[in-house]
Amino acid sequence: MTTSQTDILVIGGGPAGIEAATQCAQGGRRTLLVSATPLGGRATWGSLVPSKAWLAAAHARREAKIGEQLGLAPLDPRIDINVLRGRIQALAQDSAARYQARLAGAGVEIAQGKALLSGPGVALVTNGEDRRAVRFETAIVCSGSEPRFFPDVKPNGERLIAPRLAAKLPEVPPSILMVGAGVTGCEYAHAFATLGSRVTLITDVASLLPRADPVIAERLARDFAAQGIEIVTGARVTSARQEGDLARVALADGRILEAAYAFIAIGRTADLTLFEADCPRPETVPDGSIRVDAACRSSLPWLYAAGDATGMPMMANRALHQARIAAAHILGRPGPSAEARLIEAVYCDPQVAQIGDMGADDSVPARIVERPFANLLKANLRGETEGLLRVRIAERDGTILGAAAIGPYAADLLAPVQVAVNAGLPWERLSEVPLGHPTLTEILTQGW
Amino acid sequence: MTTSQTDILVIGGGPAGIEAATQCAQGGRRTLLVSATPLGGRATWGSLVPSKAWLAAAHARREAKIGEQLGLAPLDPRIDINVLRGRIQALAQDSAARYQARLAGAGVEIAQGKALLSGPGVALVTNGEDRRAVRFETAIVCSGSEPRFFPDVKPNGERLIAPRLAAKLPEVPPSILMVGAGVTGCEYAHAFATLGSRVTLITDVASLLPRADPVIAERLARDFAAQGIEIVTGARVTSARQEGDLARVALADGRILEAAYAFIAIGRTADLTLFEADCPRPETVPDGSIRVDAACRSSLPWLYAAGDATGMPMMANRALHQARIAAAHILGRPGPSAEARLIEAVYCDPQVAQIGDMGADDSVPARIVERPFANLLKANLRGETEGLLRVRIAERDGTILGAAAIGPYAADLLAPVQVAVNAGLPWERLSEVPLGHPTLTEILTQGW
Repeated sequence: MTTSQTDILVIGGGPAGIEAATQCAQGGRRTLLVSATPLGGRATWGSLVPSKAWLAAAHARREAKIGEQLGLAPLDPRIDINVLRGRIQALAQDSAARYQARLAGAGVEIAQGKALLSGPGVALVTNGEDRRAVRFETAIVCSGSEPRFFPDVKPNGERLIAPRLAAKLPEVPPSILMVGAGVTGCEYAHAFATLGSRVTLITDVASLLPRADPVIAERLARDFAAQGIEIVTGARVTSARQEGDLARVALADGRILEAAYAFIAIGRTADLTLFEADCPRPETVPDGSIRVDAACRSSLPWLYAAGDATGMPMMANRALHQARIAAAHILGRPGPSAEARLIEAVYCDPQVAQIGDMGADDSVPARIVERPFANLLKANLRGETEGLLRVRIAERDGTILGAAAIGPYAADLLAPVQVAVNAGLPWERLSEVPLGHPTLTEILTQGW
Repeated sequence: MTTSQTDILVIGGGPAGIEAATQCAQGGRRTLLVSATPLGGRATWGSLVPSKAWLAAAHARREAKIGEQLGLAPLDPRIDINVLRGRIQALAQDSAARYQARLAGAGVEIAQGKALLSGPGVALVTNGEDRRAVRFETAIVCSGSEPRFFPDVKPNGERLIAPRLAAKLPEVPPSILMVGAGVTGCEYAHAFATLGSRVTLITDVASLLPRADPVIAERLARDFAAQGIEIVTGARVTSARQEGDLARVALADGRILEAAYAFIAIGRTADLTLFEADCPRPETVPDGSIRVDAACRSSLPWLYAAGDATGMPMMANRALHQARIAAAHILGRPGPSAEARLIEAVYCDPQVAQIGDMGADDSVPARIVERPFANLLKANLRGETEGLLRVRIAERDGTILGAAAIGPYAADLLAPVQVAVNAGLPWERLSEVPLGHPTLTEILTQGW
């Protein structure tokens, strides 16, 4: 078995690993990136890119509907699933090629395989029969997350599917039971419904998107109902089974639901299958992911972690942010702040996006400003006037504690708010200068 | 003739006048708004709303094309012009109704008619046979602008058209000569070309959009060429004539161009037809518009002005900004700063947007950061990877001097930049926290 030497070992070839490795190498450290997947990781090949391609198709369908109000011909509602599947594959390949070029440009060494940590400064990289020992100074765990299933509620690759199988569906499901109404459940429910599926969205809690501002989540439920999505709340799924060509989902109250497919989207768990038996383990938080400090260090002095491996919320922008924090700390440079607030978004139509605290911490006296999209010329031009922006403002100094929005391009719309929140600019300061007219971001500066 | 009394007389029912009147009335001043047009002004009934509706139809057409790459069926390229015309009318009516409700809610008195200033504190309002004298303390001129023509280059309402006539076109022009490549010329050239016209875009200068960053303007020209738009630069138009069913445009070099229509979009001039013969006049700037100070006061102590009446750049967001500045000063309240930088945008696809100074003032040592859209997942999902962001950064302190972008939703993309520019945040500060992934605004925080 050969042994190689590096300064920084990055485990995981998803967005966080690629960002961390690039920055470490650009900072002059010898860096090895080990990836068990093609470059881009599960985000590119299984979850993020496929879901966003389905959503892009649904978005184009919706935009064509907008066009009908303006005199364009109605669009044939059919979609050629082979074109969509090919596009998903091409998008993933293109992403991987861009990542490859970026890593090569920075001088990162890339190894395909599974990395197992043996102890401080020592790892084993296996790729089939190939085994290689790696000595390193510092490791950064960017191993991502995997969908979580239960023994009786899991995909079978046919009529019981999960995110990574959506990239390879042979058809737009004529009907589908979506088990789980978090980000993934809501995104796919919308995409399938827009492209012609009869969708039932099932959640064991009382509302969609449990992490979202309740007013906004309620609006999304109303919009989804108008899209023809049936929503079943407070329903615990006890089993999902395939019988013939049908998916059957049993609920705890005895009800049985049937459709052509069932899609299991009940959450993700950090993938920490990277420690050999006698390797010391870092401390974890209750959900099983790695506990990190403000520099993204684990409890082990030689081990950092970034991205989904550190737990909720599992978002690509948080992964990139943590990767930059870890790399800056390793390089001994000033880095971005771990205190920074990030946008959490759901990329269905209407989009839902949120930043900061919308009221969970009610110890701070605050007021809520609400702005409907209905006053925006741009929203009227689109015929989509149902959107709403809510901003929570501290009574004491007018700073922005949080903001939540539902409407087209909501995640982009909160970008100026993110800048203001992280710079400590008061709401008045953000909203005193009119943005472009007519735009959607204009809602931030239009006071009526 | 009756005489009425008010504190504030606002002349003009466009966006600036409505904003100024609302704010004055909300601040407790008795306010009369006199509008010669239906509420919303020329922007709503003649220029802004019709052009944005044409662009919305073109945008939906383009989004449907994006959908084809993702497996959606090709869209029938025809557009029902009657539906579009009806939609333009409905959008203008809806806007006017929203304005009406807003003014009424604030307690503004509205008079339909033409206001003529007689002297300090006295105006005459005429509406057909109705004549009424108005005594006021302060007047705010929000009279807007009108398209500028030359004797041999002007619309005739048939085959020679201009912005306000585009709302009533009987067909998508099979071919059209666009005279002028400023904002209006570029927007309509794109809309018509996307909806099936053969478009020739003619300008007397060397490039499109003379106010724009040259790198971005050059990119737009390249994209327009790819859209099938023929661009004729450095060509002075000496006449535009209709002969039979053809529009014929003569150039100074002797060339004659022919098409089904010609569209004259060579600029706008402030409408200052509001002074009686012996009324003292405010100072003007060389283009003939009213010179205003940082509080939007003219040289006459009783006269403020806001919007296109104050000259270039003639944009709705600038008009709203000036209206708020004027109202705040009249009310003796702190208002937004006249020094604030605003986004200038062209709402074609790709959009072009700009803020601040991209190099006109080269006395400040600065560097340019360029970010291509091609690295963005969202741009790849849309299959629109040609976009570019350019940011001009002061060497001394890293603050943002200017930014320019071309690409989908460029005007929204510059919204966080506007916040940073006006708050004096350095570029590093703007770009250190990742925005939502995948979004287009993400380009501001993605460093590769």
